[in-house]
Amino acid sequence: MTDTPLFERVAIIGIGLIGSSLARALKAHGLARHVAAHDVDAQVRATAETLGFADSVHSDMGTAVAAADLVVLAIPVGVYGVTAKAMAPHLAAGAIVTDVGSVKEEVIRAVKPVLPSGVHLVPGHPVAGTEHSGPEAGFAELFTDRWAILTPEKDCDEQAVEKVAEMWRRVGSDVEIMEAAHHDRVLAITSHLPHLIAYTIVATAADLESQLQAEREGDDVVTTAEVIKYSAGGFRDFTRIAGSNPVMWRDVFLSNKEAVLEMLGRFTEDLTALQRAIRWDDGEQLEKVFTRTRAIRRGVVEARQAGRFQYTENGGGKADDGAE
Amino acid sequence: MTDTPLFERVAIIGIGLIGSSLARALKAHGLARHVAAHDVDAQVRATAETLGFADSVHSDMGTAVAAADLVVLAIPVGVYGVTAKAMAPHLAAGAIVTDVGSVKEEVIRAVKPVLPSGVHLVPGHPVAGTEHSGPEAGFAELFTDRWAILTPEKDCDEQAVEKVAEMWRRVGSDVEIMEAAHHDRVLAITSHLPHLIAYTIVATAADLESQLQAEREGDDVVTTAEVIKYSAGGFRDFTRIAGSNPVMWRDVFLSNKEAVLEMLGRFTEDLTALQRAIRWDDGEQLEKVFTRTRAIRRGVVEARQAGRFQYTENGGGKADDGAE
Repeated sequence: MTDTPLFERVAIIGIGLIGSSLARALKAHGLARHVAAHDVDAQVRATAETLGFADSVHSDMGTAVAAADLVVLAIPVGVYGVTAKAMAPHLAAGAIVTDVGSVKEEVIRAVKPVLPSGVHLVPGHPVAGTEHSGPEAGFAELFTDRWAILTPEKDCDEQAVEKVAEMWRRVGSDVEIMEAAHHDRVLAITSHLPHLIAYTIVATAADLESQLQAEREGDDVVTTAEVIKYSAGGFRDFTRIAGSNPVMWRDVFLSNKEAVLEMLGRFTEDLTALQRAIRWDDGEQLEKVFTRTRAIRRGVVEARQAGRFQYTENGGGKADDGAE
Repeated sequence: MTDTPLFERVAIIGIGLIGSSLARALKAHGLARHVAAHDVDAQVRATAETLGFADSVHSDMGTAVAAADLVVLAIPVGVYGVTAKAMAPHLAAGAIVTDVGSVKEEVIRAVKPVLPSGVHLVPGHPVAGTEHSGPEAGFAELFTDRWAILTPEKDCDEQAVEKVAEMWRRVGSDVEIMEAAHHDRVLAITSHLPHLIAYTIVATAADLESQLQAEREGDDVVTTAEVIKYSAGGFRDFTRIAGSNPVMWRDVFLSNKEAVLEMLGRFTEDLTALQRAIRWDDGEQLEKVFTRTRAIRRGVVEARQAGRFQYTENGGGKADDGAE
């Protein structure tokens, strides 16, 4: 299905899971006459050449962004500043710069000051992903039926915002506009904290074997092999999330520090209260909390949101079992 | 596929998700000449009559277990003691009593002392389930390719253990034998702690709206609607686990208190360390932890364990999306 091209030339900076998926989607829907791709990693560029999802692959970022009417940053948030600085002299007048990062205030803080005047910054975040990384993991349908959140500042060019919004709509996403600070708080609870917790419990489980064995030989050691073997009881769902890109997530936590620490503080309070209820045999309190969360699960199901986070691998559903 | 009946009469006490699934599986594989079902809830019994997965449905537990050569407790762990006491006078000589609970030391503690001599206790735990509850949610294939863990005491009759093991093998499970205390520690990290954490984060998210609104009007409130809307970023996976049966889980935490509190203590230490790394911008530490957990995820995938925890609803895999 080919639509009228929205852009003459789109430059995608960073062609991992999200960047390469967007390149594929832009080509699949005919949204750009030319998709230029850049990555700092030579191996990634070689893979991109082989897979052929971009019209051109550049080792030099300046060449990639030159004459582009849209530049998409699809790199870890931690390198936004240096990358924007390096590309700034090569940007075409009137170009739009957008991104796909999971933190939005940081984009404005790091990227906006170094952009030439006349270049429009439209921060964006497709709420989509899998736990896999790299250009091989990407696919054109990644954004279908997902949310794409844009967080333009009040003085941002309306036409620029609309063009980026239209791009996301044409690759299948529903677009929402909100303030960057609000985005960062919403995502802190719906995405960043869940990832932090998942990483933590997997690390805790991994340490059981080594720690205990060192402590007391002959103790009742829970081995890593056992954790893996019986992971179907709930743990497995956490390992999936904890399989996500470490560098990307490192940068998310560091650049959304305030909101993450706030949500983490609330979570720790609530967990401590449940811990106390367990220690004091307060079954009534436990049941009360567990019953309340069940209602929210129902809300998620009713919102038809359940099942919308794609995994290229098995997702835990019955239908997946055969595919593994 | 009908095998030689292993049992003349199996009585299933409690016919929710697991009990009703076992009844269905026993009938599907012809493992019992007669499956008798009992539940304290009249509504559940009526549903069981309608669905017809048992040969007889009893409001009186004594009638259900009379002449049964196998009795299966499929009720919350918290009522094991009173239930066993009530059924004891009606148990046939030589009968085997087993269960499906997620905590195993408690079974021995609560059930064993009240059983007549000559009745064999073989504690069991099929590591299988969905986040749904009740007799409507059950299905015969629930135990296929899952682990069934048995934790008989050393003096337990070997033939009784073997018969229960054979039952699980014939409904499709892989059987493991281990000590009850070890089971409870393994499950504390692979199942109980993940559930506790999932319940907590969903409760934390649910409180954001009300708490903040009460605090300061006009504040940057994250609404429950937004949490649900953007749950695809990771939160959704937690809501699925947090949709599990509240009474069953209340009893799991109370009856496996020691192991759960130990694992929770370790988890909290690790989470606090990551919190400190975020506050102090220690990206190196974050990346180190995130990279290590990724390797474990790979272990889970390689063990072909991923995807083995069935959900009757969408599981988040791509293949599921169409089913919603």
